[in-house]
Amino acid sequence: MARPLRIAAWQCPSLPGDVGANLARLAETAERAAASGADVLVTPEMYVTGYDIGIERTRELAEAPDGPIFEAIAGITRRTGVAIAYGYPERLDDGGIANAAQLVDDGRAIGAHRKAHLFGGLDGERFTPADARPAAFHFRGLRVGMLICYDVEFPEAVRALAAGGAEVVLAPTANMVPYALVSTVLVRARALENGVTVAYANYCGTESIEGGGDQVYAGLSTVCGPDGAVLALAAADGEELLIADAVGDPLPYLRDRRPELY
Amino acid sequence: MARPLRIAAWQCPSLPGDVGANLARLAETAERAAASGADVLVTPEMYVTGYDIGIERTRELAEAPDGPIFEAIAGITRRTGVAIAYGYPERLDDGGIANAAQLVDDGRAIGAHRKAHLFGGLDGERFTPADARPAAFHFRGLRVGMLICYDVEFPEAVRALAAGGAEVVLAPTANMVPYALVSTVLVRARALENGVTVAYANYCGTESIEGGGDQVYAGLSTVCGPDGAVLALAAADGEELLIADAVGDPLPYLRDRRPELY
Repeated sequence: MARPLRIAAWQCPSLPGDVGANLARLAETAERAAASGADVLVTPEMYVTGYDIGIERTRELAEAPDGPIFEAIAGITRRTGVAIAYGYPERLDDGGIANAAQLVDDGRAIGAHRKAHLFGGLDGERFTPADARPAAFHFRGLRVGMLICYDVEFPEAVRALAAGGAEVVLAPTANMVPYALVSTVLVRARALENGVTVAYANYCGTESIEGGGDQVYAGLSTVCGPDGAVLALAAADGEELLIADAVGDPLPYLRDRRPELY
Repeated sequence: MARPLRIAAWQCPSLPGDVGANLARLAETAERAAASGADVLVTPEMYVTGYDIGIERTRELAEAPDGPIFEAIAGITRRTGVAIAYGYPERLDDGGIANAAQLVDDGRAIGAHRKAHLFGGLDGERFTPADARPAAFHFRGLRVGMLICYDVEFPEAVRALAAGGAEVVLAPTANMVPYALVSTVLVRARALENGVTVAYANYCGTESIEGGGDQVYAGLSTVCGPDGAVLALAAADGEELLIADAVGDPLPYLRDRRPELY
């Protein structure tokens, strides 16, 4: 690549249920990311609606990939020049709902992912899990993949993306206390063992809404490089906009695998 | 298990080429491990011969799994009551050599492994890689597996063992500077993501022998628990006998995998 991809990973508190407020502060944060020269802004899991918002509200706020939330975000990407990876409840054709993420650049959806690894009842009671292998897509001269939260904790998921050519993995998450090791150990391992950059954007603080749960998020959003370097790491609490370039020399793990043995 | 497995992981300098001296100090260390109540003593990769000893010496010192080195180690296990996981160059029936490890308890070989992931020319010029999936075996009421050095850096290898029932993974290694992140990130991730205890025993200091190479080892031998806790971690340099009990509550990663997607 001519110049490395610059990633903004946004750690913020959840504003559960308030799509309008979430879109407003997203527009503002995208301006800040643009001022930092970022190519892409990664937000936490189900950023636009909040994560643990209950079954009723999840159903109410779910939309198709080209719904009004998408239109609003498409507008932000056109105005700022920054692509946005955002999470939302996706309404499926069969009436089910997926825990989904979409990457939007210059007004167009260029990649999508549905969460494949459901986290206990919190996901299992609301979402249909993905039934497709995660795939990389083209973004600004690179191959990029997306995973959502629990997905990235499974080495197989990141390996599938990397083996399919992904150089960068964007991972919206809603990682709670006490799972801090996901940020500091697992995400870093995924980057190193696959030779990819992983951007993991988490909530901080408490999320509480009637009909939903009370979650305390672990913060520690991070961007790790393909050599396992911690390119950026947020604190366990407090809003933060991490900015990091996807740089580093990978080790030859992909070449040296023995897939015939596994 | 009635009481947790107690593991001794020995970080020591290499004495390349001197099998007699290596067996003598192994006997002494096994006594110390016994005094600490250890069930098993894990030594570095190719401990009995040294690792980067050149092709000629590797060929000279290679033996069958029931050769004289095995007999000596079997004797130590009978005398001390401590099982020993040791590495050695294994002479294969076809004239090739494997980078091998064997677990010996009370005079009997109860498990074996051949390195499947060869590390560059250093392994590739000397060794035939394993062509079998790693498998767990029974040891003192638990299921235990072995991997050698570079093997453990591949999530697939540890996953294969854990999916096959392994609760503990013993990993002799010869990890050089500058690969410290293998100890502190990858080994810890392997333990956490599979809910297994991983004992990673490395050399420290410099290994140098005519006809072989000059290696500076990274130390940082470690035992990590099934919840990702660092149960023991040696310094980057200096001999150390780590003692740790294989304890900790695993997360439900094995249950929550989606193997049909990978």
